Amino acid sequence: IFLLAFAISSVGHYLASLGLAFVAASLTFRLIPAVSEMFIKAGLSGIDLNKHEKLKKKVPEAIGVVAATIYLIVIFLYIPFHFRAYLLVEQQGTDGFPHDKFVAFICGLLSICCMIFLGFADDVLNLAWRHKLLLPTLAALPLLIVYKVTGGSTTVILPIFARPFLGHTLDLGVLFYIYMGMLSVFCTNAINILAGVNGIEAGQSLVIAVSLVVNSIIQIIGTEYHEGHQLALCLLMPFCGVTAALLWHNWYPSNVFVGDTFCYFAGITFAVTGILGHFSKTLLLFLMPQIFNFVFSVPQLFKLIPCPRHRLPKYDQSTGLLTMSYATFATSSLSRPGRLVLDIVRVTGLCHVRPNPEQPELTDVSNFTIINLVIKMVGPIHEEKLTTYILMLQVASSVLALAIRYPFGNMFFDQPLA
Amino acid sequence: IFLLAFAISSVGHYLASLGLAFVAASLTFRLIPAVSEMFIKAGLSGIDLNKHEKLKKKVPEAIGVVAATIYLIVIFLYIPFHFRAYLLVEQQGTDGFPHDKFVAFICGLLSICCMIFLGFADDVLNLAWRHKLLLPTLAALPLLIVYKVTGGSTTVILPIFARPFLGHTLDLGVLFYIYMGMLSVFCTNAINILAGVNGIEAGQSLVIAVSLVVNSIIQIIGTEYHEGHQLALCLLMPFCGVTAALLWHNWYPSNVFVGDTFCYFAGITFAVTGILGHFSKTLLLFLMPQIFNFVFSVPQLFKLIPCPRHRLPKYDQSTGLLTMSYATFATSSLSRPGRLVLDIVRVTGLCHVRPNPEQPELTDVSNFTIINLVIKMVGPIHEEKLTTYILMLQVASSVLALAIRYPFGNMFFDQPLA
Ligand SMILES: [Mg+2]
Ligand SMILES: [Mg+2]
Repeated sequence: IFLLAFAISSVGHYLASLGLAFVAASLTFRLIPAVSEMFIKAGLSGIDLNKHEKLKKKVPEAIGVVAATIYLIVIFLYIPFHFRAYLLVEQQGTDGFPHDKFVAFICGLLSICCMIFLGFADDVLNLAWRHKLLLPTLAALPLLIVYKVTGGSTTVILPIFARPFLGHTLDLGVLFYIYMGMLSVFCTNAINILAGVNGIEAGQSLVIAVSLVVNSIIQIIGTEYHEGHQLALCLLMPFCGVTAALLWHNWYPSNVFVGDTFCYFAGITFAVTGILGHFSKTLLLFLMPQIFNFVFSVPQLFKLIPCPRHRLPKYDQSTGLLTMSYATFATSSLSRPGRLVLDIVRVTGLCHVRPNPEQPELTDVSNFTIINLVIKMVGPIHEEKLTTYILMLQVASSVLALAIRYPFGNMFFDQPLA
Repeated sequence: IFLLAFAISSVGHYLASLGLAFVAASLTFRLIPAVSEMFIKAGLSGIDLNKHEKLKKKVPEAIGVVAATIYLIVIFLYIPFHFRAYLLVEQQGTDGFPHDKFVAFICGLLSICCMIFLGFADDVLNLAWRHKLLLPTLAALPLLIVYKVTGGSTTVILPIFARPFLGHTLDLGVLFYIYMGMLSVFCTNAINILAGVNGIEAGQSLVIAVSLVVNSIIQIIGTEYHEGHQLALCLLMPFCGVTAALLWHNWYPSNVFVGDTFCYFAGITFAVTGILGHFSKTLLLFLMPQIFNFVFSVPQLFKLIPCPRHRLPKYDQSTGLLTMSYATFATSSLSRPGRLVLDIVRVTGLCHVRPNPEQPELTDVSNFTIINLVIKMVGPIHEEKLTTYILMLQVASSVLALAIRYPFGNMFFDQPLA
């Protein structure tokens, strides 16, 4: 019985987090339909472009803010559980309390709260890019201070093949902080640009979060080093809860849109858990589709190739299927690097290039997104099936990541990766 | 020279905070006109009811979010200054770093960030009351944990006259935490209900913030106990900066409205500084007009007396002056306590009671706000003058508060109040 009590108390915070995850999921699930009307009234709604003319209706936008707020509330309620061993001690004072863990927790929440706020402001006000980059960079600042003062190492262990040149480890120093700051900015935008079909934002986030949960459970069971993964697990389980509930309503045909709010919220939650859990490299492994999509998008994001306002696939009213969307331009209008990029994507087959059907002197190139690439490979496709394919890709990538991380990691590193 | 360098380094964070206050003020001042159009486009605008028919135009609403965001950014930038002595130390590790102070800082910011988010959501979505009470209560939770683990005392020193009955001090225990939680909720709503004429929300907040700054400077110069007031000062100076810039644009005739966002932001900033600076009782002294207005409003807030949607004064199109606004009802429809309240305000002269001019069988009572009370005392008045009067009242109340706090405090307490 004593052992059982000990076992329960040692997993108590996992149980609390899991319980709160279910509470959060059920709250989110029930609150979303209840508040949808309020969002439409406030002008937060959009038309789903990928639907048949007759089925088009106003869909409430930025509903991710409901999931995010419930997540925040649940995590606030969870804090006392996480530190209950110290808070229940009768005498007052600072003696036993793990200030460093508490401050890490609160800093993480602060970053998350800032990004939810920024995302919602973006949904409401359609912020310019310069506004969107400033706040996330600064919101990462407390996180970096925490990383420093909780003794976070800026030393990376180098892969075996690099050691003859650079030594066993490399202290990146300030570069490592810049890397972490950029990680926050990257994560928050990575989900946002792999978007445009029903259920894709919430779906990919759920797959990534579940993968991170699996990874943390493996770490907690299998290794000595626990602390960061305990924190990550307790932050990620409620996230899975609210995201699953949101996905239910956001799945094809979407009754709600998640908005920038959700994309930012999901991205920063991943960044925070990765940084505070000291597994940012593993996190990047799970984000491979997002990294591929981002790198693939760069020519359009930096305007080497013209970028239309929307890059989401095009709905074919006659077949009801989604087809590739194109950017149209005169080849002569491209810069020299732009023309090089066009040649590369044509030769590698990453994009479909054709003369514009109506004005043959102009060139069409399918937009530089992983979604268009999937359509290019499988042909015109139903929206629900497309989302499912991309999520399966995400799952496959997670399995691959776990395979790299565990069995194969030892081929390049002679000790477990952090 | 050595002494000078020491003096500079010991006031360095005040200088940094003061400098950032000016930066914040100038940024806010210039950004507000630049983004106004964006707010109107997003549907965040309202018509100023207290203006002549011909001068009515769309005024951007919720502009407080600009001030609040700049405040957050500036405070993020300020954090490294506050802890520069520890961050500049070469060796890594947790040894010298004052985790307890850092965590207090971050918790304060978290509460502020949550309330800004909630305020903005309220401006956009018009939240219901039940939503508005949940998040601020929970956002105060980290603050309370910090208060506990940084050794905050729940013991209050009793006034001399109460000691024969209750002893020298009284440990309120958990009641004290409830009190602090309620303080946060009270502060965030107190500014919001003393509203309705141009410049009043930002104006009263500026007066209160400057009063708190004066109080903290007196404490830092005059007493041994510094720490809480240092933190308060560094949080309040940038607040004064952004609020002054906002007030400039919000002053009669308002080019922008501050919105719930600003009211919540101001309220929680006061609550956070009061709690973390351990001077919550002094804070309440500076909030006397707000407390009076709240208590005065209670009969309408709890529907003992009918409460119209808006309680702001009524604009007289012919004279251009503001007059009292009334709630109209059949006296027989009132509950017994409602009739008692009506008798009290009639006898004490707090409200004007009259038969309705059009339907004499109905009763008119001027709405239960300090603004209507001022108009009742001075007669119909120009809007700018009304705002000035109420702000003068706030200044007078601050002077009185300082008088109670310092010279007279010793009549009731034999040691300085915390
Ligand atoms: Mg947007
Ligand atoms: Mg409102």
